[in-house]
Amino acid sequence: MSKVLVFGHQNPDTDAITSAIAFAYLQNKLGIDTEAVALGAVNEETAYALNYFNTAAPRIIETAANETKQVMLVDHNEFQQSVSDIKELEVLSVVDHHRIANFETANPLYYRAEPVGCTNTIILKLFKENNVTIPKEIAGLMASAIISDSLLFKSPTCTSEDVAAAKELAELADIDLNTYGLAMLKAGTNLTDKSAEDLIDSDAKSFPMGGKNLRIGQVNTVDVSDVLSRQTEVEAAMLKANKDNGFDMFILVITNILDSDSVVLVVGEPKEKVEVAFNVKLENNTALLKGVVSRKKQVVPPLTNAFA
Amino acid sequence: MSKVLVFGHQNPDTDAITSAIAFAYLQNKLGIDTEAVALGAVNEETAYALNYFNTAAPRIIETAANETKQVMLVDHNEFQQSVSDIKELEVLSVVDHHRIANFETANPLYYRAEPVGCTNTIILKLFKENNVTIPKEIAGLMASAIISDSLLFKSPTCTSEDVAAAKELAELADIDLNTYGLAMLKAGTNLTDKSAEDLIDSDAKSFPMGGKNLRIGQVNTVDVSDVLSRQTEVEAAMLKANKDNGFDMFILVITNILDSDSVVLVVGEPKEKVEVAFNVKLENNTALLKGVVSRKKQVVPPLTNAFA
Repeated sequence: MSKVLVFGHQNPDTDAITSAIAFAYLQNKLGIDTEAVALGAVNEETAYALNYFNTAAPRIIETAANETKQVMLVDHNEFQQSVSDIKELEVLSVVDHHRIANFETANPLYYRAEPVGCTNTIILKLFKENNVTIPKEIAGLMASAIISDSLLFKSPTCTSEDVAAAKELAELADIDLNTYGLAMLKAGTNLTDKSAEDLIDSDAKSFPMGGKNLRIGQVNTVDVSDVLSRQTEVEAAMLKANKDNGFDMFILVITNILDSDSVVLVVGEPKEKVEVAFNVKLENNTALLKGVVSRKKQVVPPLTNAFA
Repeated sequence: MSKVLVFGHQNPDTDAITSAIAFAYLQNKLGIDTEAVALGAVNEETAYALNYFNTAAPRIIETAANETKQVMLVDHNEFQQSVSDIKELEVLSVVDHHRIANFETANPLYYRAEPVGCTNTIILKLFKENNVTIPKEIAGLMASAIISDSLLFKSPTCTSEDVAAAKELAELADIDLNTYGLAMLKAGTNLTDKSAEDLIDSDAKSFPMGGKNLRIGQVNTVDVSDVLSRQTEVEAAMLKANKDNGFDMFILVITNILDSDSVVLVVGEPKEKVEVAFNVKLENNTALLKGVVSRKKQVVPPLTNAFA
């Protein structure tokens, strides 16, 4: 019997990587032979967390059906965000905190989604429901994911359950949430070494909307001019990504984690849908979105409505 | 703020009706104003359970958007099995034990599915997780659903969790599972008073497969000849249902609850897919399916594969 593979979405962020590690650990304790893997390289923020808690980055896979028949998905469900051969696999379990779409199974499965800010907040419940103790390192990685997804509790996606879970996990991991959290977030904002291609794609997801294929990327920074000073180069990379992958529009959400605002940079068409969605006027392909930090809660829903 | 409506699938069976009642009760205790409703009249088995536990049948609705914006689904998720205007509503929660398909939301939600035999087995967990006491009548209705879905624990869909849940609920409801269960199941097998239309439609669901639209109905009986003696009349009703509703094929699963076998009766095309799915030869449009009692686990998956 081959191992059940557990993985988060493509272009993995800290929650995608650490929820796979935590959920695979839990499943192993429950007697199911699993391995946490990743659908891409870890970003600098996640690398900081993994290094801090002495954990190796999961092995990267391109396809899964060549080594297993069964998988468990964490932090995503939409097939276009999953492994390329997902339709050939049986999905045994999903633990997620996103909308459900473009997801289908032939058989009943375990599906646990809650409208909280982070997959690891749900996984903490699963550890408790199954009376499994969380090792210090895994608790630290789980806390890291909550800090990451909530931008240290500032995102509107953050619920009181996420805050309580992070505090409980920080206790187990023996960290100060603010000190550790700010250091980890800052580690993820070092954009200077990144090529324009890496910058637009490191946290990008595809969303089919109203017959169009949207690509929405997000970068965190402590200074949006770090990105906007490279606008010409970045736009060229976005246009090339559209052309190469059949995206109709590429939206890059540049989020200032200190101010909790974002600037969107848009290439492709129909741009007027972006203006309608956020009630803004694009100037030089950009617009400030005051108070917007969450792609899931503040970017995807208004775009979905505008394209409906 | 209008009430959140809670309902199971069309052509409701005992689990669809009682899981709505139980989940709405739980949500009300948790401070969310909900009402259990139904997408059709209760069948005779469910009527027996409701009568035994002094509970009124839920109000029947045709549409929901005329009275609420938000709903909670139990015992189903596929939109074609749900209320007719489901796409105009926000789904806040789903508790289910079926495959996931034809289901999509714009926002994150609470989704709890487990591969167990009955929705009420999951709802029992939710009562415990939220420390809410289950009243005797609701415990009895929940036990009734587990008996119904598992055919008194004989169905392959039945898990050890279902058996344990039924025992725990029977204790709360002060019933003997076997005595009560057999009486309830037999109440549901009285087919003589039913028109052919009622007979084929009382527990029928639609399943899109491989570009075809399948309708799969199921009736429980203690003697399959009760149905097969009316084959001409029943086939005519099935053909008319296909014509009126655009079904390509109607499959009626006639299940003997004492022998735990089923006979399928098939009209429409392509019939050879049914033969492939179950490795049988149809004779006079019928075939015996030895040991088959579960539409979900033993009928839908092989058909899905045959149509893939």
